[in-house]
Amino acid sequence: MNNITKFKILKPANEVYEAFVDPYKIKNFWFSSSSERWEQGKVITLEYDLFDAQLNIEIVEIEENRKIVFKWGANGEGHIVRISLNNLDHESTIIEVIEEGFKEDDVDQLLDNKEGWVFMLSCLKGYLEFGVNKLREGLVKE
Amino acid sequence: MNNITKFKILKPANEVYEAFVDPYKIKNFWFSSSSERWEQGKVITLEYDLFDAQLNIEIVEIEENRKIVFKWGANGEGHIVRISLNNLDHESTIIEVIEEGFKEDDVDQLLDNKEGWVFMLSCLKGYLEFGVNKLREGLVKE
Repeated sequence: MNNITKFKILKPANEVYEAFVDPYKIKNFWFSSSSERWEQGKVITLEYDLFDAQLNIEIVEIEENRKIVFKWGANGEGHIVRISLNNLDHESTIIEVIEEGFKEDDVDQLLDNKEGWVFMLSCLKGYLEFGVNKLREGLVKE
Repeated sequence: MNNITKFKILKPANEVYEAFVDPYKIKNFWFSSSSERWEQGKVITLEYDLFDAQLNIEIVEIEENRKIVFKWGANGEGHIVRISLNNLDHESTIIEVIEEGFKEDDVDQLLDNKEGWVFMLSCLKGYLEFGVNKLREGLVKE
């Protein structure tokens, strides 16, 4: 089962794309740091200061301003995430995030995952459209 | 099964409370309009211009600056929603939203509901902390 989340961002696709792949931008809406620019085949280390966490992702496929596919972890076992950007009219972009590989009865994991994607995309919209980069510490986990 | 979502808002509880109960404020982060001030026992009509939708909620229980309990619909059959506000230090509030009454195998309904609450709370945080009231049209439904 896949978890699908879709937002409209009132910015062109290249700005949305750069927010993910440029290691200087990601801290404004998602992870605290990203080890280098995202490129196909690279393993990127992401840090999340708030939870004192660090993890790797592997960039499986990338198409500039259109698509980013990565795998959680670097051991080949994590879920696949597909981020698609659809540039509507040079002023707005539909971003769709699909995380694949859930079992249908993993309800708690699915809900937790959905929470994460909706919140990240809300923060991305706040950052790109309004320059707000402090929404990210809002979510409280049990 | 209950759907639980929790955020920290860097504003005192009375400001968070007023954002819901004051009909002039709700349009900044959630519904387009609310028919009157939320008070115990009242049926409130909420409108959502974006989806050309209108619905009623019944305010079951309310405690100023601390708790709002409502039921979706006015026929007594909708889910119960419990919003709790925990004023941490006069400068920040933990808001917890619990929607009750899901069946565990209603995975799509649970995910849709989780999406709605995370997005509403993100918009509430954007509005109260940063005065951003245009996040709300970001979510795209299939």
